[in-house]
Amino acid sequence: MIIVMKSHASESDIAHVVERVKALGLNPHPVYGVERTIIGVIGDERLIQKEQLSLLPHVEDVIPILKPYKLASREFRQENTIVHVAGVPVGGKGVIVIAGPCSVETEEQVLGTAEAVKAAGASLLRGGAYKPRTSPYAFQGLGEDGLKLLAKAREKTGLGIVTEVMEAAEVDLVADHADLLQVGARNMQNTKLLRALSKIKKPILLKRNFSATLNEFLMSAEYILSGGNDQVILCERGIRTFVEYTRNTLDLNIVPAVKQLSHLPIIVDPSHGTGRHDLIVPMSRAAIAAGADGLIVEVHPNPSEAYSDGEQSLTFSAFRELMSEVKCIATAMGRNIS
Amino acid sequence: MIIVMKSHASESDIAHVVERVKALGLNPHPVYGVERTIIGVIGDERLIQKEQLSLLPHVEDVIPILKPYKLASREFRQENTIVHVAGVPVGGKGVIVIAGPCSVETEEQVLGTAEAVKAAGASLLRGGAYKPRTSPYAFQGLGEDGLKLLAKAREKTGLGIVTEVMEAAEVDLVADHADLLQVGARNMQNTKLLRALSKIKKPILLKRNFSATLNEFLMSAEYILSGGNDQVILCERGIRTFVEYTRNTLDLNIVPAVKQLSHLPIIVDPSHGTGRHDLIVPMSRAAIAAGADGLIVEVHPNPSEAYSDGEQSLTFSAFRELMSEVKCIATAMGRNIS
Amino acid sequence: MIIVMKSHASESDIAHVVERVKALGLNPHPVYGVERTIIGVIGDERLIQKEQLSLLPHVEDVIPILKPYKLASREFRQENTIVHVAGVPVGGKGVIVIAGPCSVETEEQVLGTAEAVKAAGASLLRGGAYKPRTSPYAFQGLGEDGLKLLAKAREKTGLGIVTEVMEAAEVDLVADHADLLQVGARNMQNTKLLRALSKIKKPILLKRNFSATLNEFLMSAEYILSGGNDQVILCERGIRTFVEYTRNTLDLNIVPAVKQLSHLPIIVDPSHGTGRHDLIVPMSRAAIAAGADGLIVEVHPNPSEAYSDGEQSLTFSAFRELMSEVKCIATAMGRNIS
Amino acid sequence: MIIVMKSHASESDIAHVVERVKALGLNPHPVYGVERTIIGVIGDERLIQKEQLSLLPHVEDVIPILKPYKLASREFRQENTIVHVAGVPVGGKGVIVIAGPCSVETEEQVLGTAEAVKAAGASLLRGGAYKPRTSPYAFQGLGEDGLKLLAKAREKTGLGIVTEVMEAAEVDLVADHADLLQVGARNMQNTKLLRALSKIKKPILLKRNFSATLNEFLMSAEYILSGGNDQVILCERGIRTFVEYTRNTLDLNIVPAVKQLSHLPIIVDPSHGTGRHDLIVPMSRAAIAAGADGLIVEVHPNPSEAYSDGEQSLTFSAFRELMSEVKCIATAMGRNIS
Repeated sequence: MIIVMKSHASESDIAHVVERVKALGLNPHPVYGVERTIIGVIGDERLIQKEQLSLLPHVEDVIPILKPYKLASREFRQENTIVHVAGVPVGGKGVIVIAGPCSVETEEQVLGTAEAVKAAGASLLRGGAYKPRTSPYAFQGLGEDGLKLLAKAREKTGLGIVTEVMEAAEVDLVADHADLLQVGARNMQNTKLLRALSKIKKPILLKRNFSATLNEFLMSAEYILSGGNDQVILCERGIRTFVEYTRNTLDLNIVPAVKQLSHLPIIVDPSHGTGRHDLIVPMSRAAIAAGADGLIVEVHPNPSEAYSDGEQSLTFSAFRELMSEVKCIATAMGRNIS
Repeated sequence: MIIVMKSHASESDIAHVVERVKALGLNPHPVYGVERTIIGVIGDERLIQKEQLSLLPHVEDVIPILKPYKLASREFRQENTIVHVAGVPVGGKGVIVIAGPCSVETEEQVLGTAEAVKAAGASLLRGGAYKPRTSPYAFQGLGEDGLKLLAKAREKTGLGIVTEVMEAAEVDLVADHADLLQVGARNMQNTKLLRALSKIKKPILLKRNFSATLNEFLMSAEYILSGGNDQVILCERGIRTFVEYTRNTLDLNIVPAVKQLSHLPIIVDPSHGTGRHDLIVPMSRAAIAAGADGLIVEVHPNPSEAYSDGEQSLTFSAFRELMSEVKCIATAMGRNIS
Repeated sequence: MIIVMKSHASESDIAHVVERVKALGLNPHPVYGVERTIIGVIGDERLIQKEQLSLLPHVEDVIPILKPYKLASREFRQENTIVHVAGVPVGGKGVIVIAGPCSVETEEQVLGTAEAVKAAGASLLRGGAYKPRTSPYAFQGLGEDGLKLLAKAREKTGLGIVTEVMEAAEVDLVADHADLLQVGARNMQNTKLLRALSKIKKPILLKRNFSATLNEFLMSAEYILSGGNDQVILCERGIRTFVEYTRNTLDLNIVPAVKQLSHLPIIVDPSHGTGRHDLIVPMSRAAIAAGADGLIVEVHPNPSEAYSDGEQSLTFSAFRELMSEVKCIATAMGRNIS
Repeated sequence: MIIVMKSHASESDIAHVVERVKALGLNPHPVYGVERTIIGVIGDERLIQKEQLSLLPHVEDVIPILKPYKLASREFRQENTIVHVAGVPVGGKGVIVIAGPCSVETEEQVLGTAEAVKAAGASLLRGGAYKPRTSPYAFQGLGEDGLKLLAKAREKTGLGIVTEVMEAAEVDLVADHADLLQVGARNMQNTKLLRALSKIKKPILLKRNFSATLNEFLMSAEYILSGGNDQVILCERGIRTFVEYTRNTLDLNIVPAVKQLSHLPIIVDPSHGTGRHDLIVPMSRAAIAAGADGLIVEVHPNPSEAYSDGEQSLTFSAFRELMSEVKCIATAMGRNIS
């Protein structure tokens, strides 16, 4: 942590800050400059509030040096974490593809989609039973019945199940049916939910909120890790910007940035990331080329009849094309579809 | 709803879309242009999914015309809604000021602050018992003990209590102690929480998520209204932009925009909106001048010792100065501090 | 400037950086922490490239401490700069209102508007002779003829003239006719233009680019100041964000931020800032309440016939109402319309 | 164009708008809905101002249907435009790589870099002689001397030259030396410059402004095309968002979006797009996988000594690694490095 004093700060102002730093159990090292004095602070800055120093008289700024997260950092763990979901390793050499409908609608829809994506080479099946919708008048999901249909699809196809959990009170129920529990973008900072998920023994798919910084994203992972669950997969799904030709701006830059700063796997959701079915294939290729460990893609037997997200869903044949394109890029990257 | 056909769409392509619109129970009116055909659609477009039409062959775009919200709209209700919180009317001629600490920390802190803000003319007392924090290592609030301290402060000062509720499971407990239940920015689209709040008989303070559009903001209000609770106060608290000199970008433009589109009251939070105690006074004045119905401001007996948000909290004397400045502007607006 | 070393940096890595700092003519002061070492650097960091240090081996980050601007800073000049435009002081106790059409269209339009805004109390007349338009097919301004019409309006009304200059080659021509030369938002970083303007003896109105940070904005002012022209007025006119209900997001937070960091006057353009005539009045009030030194507003005799920006222009009667509202707020602020 | 009437608009209000549309030479087709009436308008909406209709009484909104650009659109020209730069085709099957220093500094630096990037397989040489810098105190380029050094490098290596032109007055001079004239991001809407470039016979590299929408980007291309120069290459170089781990947010989504809407080639600048040399390789791979026609990358013999942009420049060996990685992806895409 570095304390920047105002240019007019007197010696006694500086002495006061130095004393305060010591009282907080940290070691101050003032550096007297020509225009202003800065004070280097040694010790674990995460244990104090920045305000305890920034609001002292004649302090201009306090600059943290340490990353706010620990367990999620590459420094804490050098090698890549590999998360196993229903036998599928995520974060290793293989590239995974999670596919399925936005919402679970009917048995026929789920089973049909499961079989189609399995045949095309998908690694896991996604489907929403609980749906966070912008409108109270929109379809909100089948709830527990949806979970049961997903479980039935797993029985038939052997594909592990990925589904969203929306509140702490539902964690146990969802964990009973799912192999990978998804935290949606809107819930990335639902700390009650994150804490509940930190206590279970199932892997978590943590989606980035559409206005989350990298620090905030990794701090949400830190909630889960610090509670005892180290099976976290990150997921980029688009951020909110001024851009209007995509529903969100898929931010692939975060993929190599996460690879440098963290040991956790990261996958990409080009369906939500672009909101346009016609951009899913190129952005999926780009995601793998940027170094992502996998994709999560919406697939529907008949997108124009989907209860939700039809505009960003692939048909079965479009999904087969996607798999073929993605395989070429994965191969060029020295990886394979697992 | 307007359907824009691609420029090369044939007559039979158009006929197919027209049939589909009819099958959905709506009335199509094609307008044949030189470059392309558009189809005006009569009927309540909120009842169908946009994708049911946008994914039909040779459709280029589907443009909704109706606002997605109904109950929150000025068209549904012409006159301003006035929400009564512990006897204080919000949304009428008076301008309210909610003040208090970010977090409830100790009895002395809460009672001291309550008395100070009451003496300075505050309308209601705020304080957080449940705190959604970015870091799992930061203070997470006193929980129920915090609620009890707030209730004690109400007894002593007569000020109504405003506090945050973070999940559906805690709504009843918080409603037992609070006069106005706050939905934090991170929970603006926690639909489980919104639904639970729609079933109680207490007013709700709905904070705008830092990346919410106006439509999304009003749709979250619609969740509460549509469940039967019509006592909703909106709150602008800053959006996330590229700007770096404020923690968030306080977006005062939404105040007159909400006044045009909705009948609900709207207040402004300059503490979170700027993240800087030294910008609170000018931005509070500006908020009132823009037409806001009130302010919610963080006040702490000793901001540099605050457990949270010290950098954006006012001291008691700074709060008294704020009240004096705000009164001048309210008067110029033909309003008073209520 | 502070250099943050990587956690694994050895003593010799640190020594290497220390030597390099010395070679650049600055004084290094290492502070050896538990997790990592930081090196405080004394001297004028503006004279070196950040990369000269950040790319050295085992350096994690280099953090500048000094503001990049000097002449524009409050530290360089404590008292407010007052810029005189055709006898009107800007940045003093008075609040100024610049008003007029977006584009100069006809003699009748300019003279009519000039007289109307003068009668309503405007301080200066604005009007565009050179128009930077998004579309090559849109009206690009009358050019020199437009300048002459503006000069004629000055003769008739006595109002000083504010108009945009778009390139270095036109500076002299525009300076011959105008009292205040405007740099448009798109040209805020047109360094050739800024340098040319730094050499003339007329005041400059520098509009913030819609994605400029505060540092970038003040650095553009620094271009003009450092070339010898100290007559610069800043202008906030809205930034680009995800928000859709306004054309831009008028960022009033920059007004008090500039007042702290700089001695230059700042005015606000609610016409471009919101893009909506129906938001101009409330946002103008808010701008003055935030501490702005004035407004620049588009006024047109018949906005629906305007060649440009009609949606954000006021009619004559709406402008009179604006003046009356703004006066109330200015009075409450202890200021007057000058 | 579609006109949406307010819900309370009377028949005579609608009739008034209908008359006005006819007077403007367009054909109105009202569609009478339950909640509100909309009026479809037939004819070339680009010829009128939106305000001519949106400001009529009881009009709620006017929605354009046609794209604002014509010559840049895929509808105007179905097949891809291939731009030839010093014999190198851009926009065809080959993927091009433009490489070189941010600024031309010395003869040794330019010639050395030119030879190194040529040996590694680069298609063209970049280098800045005129530099638009945020700070007036930073290196502003060698000007004409820089152009001459670039020309010398072309003589020696045979590589075509890409360099920036900053104002209309310099177009002829730069065109005398360069093979591809670059319009920098800050100048994307410098309409004087765009018009001057539309009159020359050299190809133009048009960089996207960091807050430009796709429509604005293509409209800037339209300026050049409409003046008679059809040799335009687009370049994505990062947009400004709230994200802090990259200098800009490289928006690869625009690559497939441009491919759908326009016939113009598009390349990607991962140096400016990320601002970090350690993200250039993954994001270059991703750019090619997204469908980009090429890359423009900063290379410097010794980045920590660079006069500008050192943090985002590759060393010679890093550039060789980039070429090898990019070739793999290009091959997987069925393309080659040309």
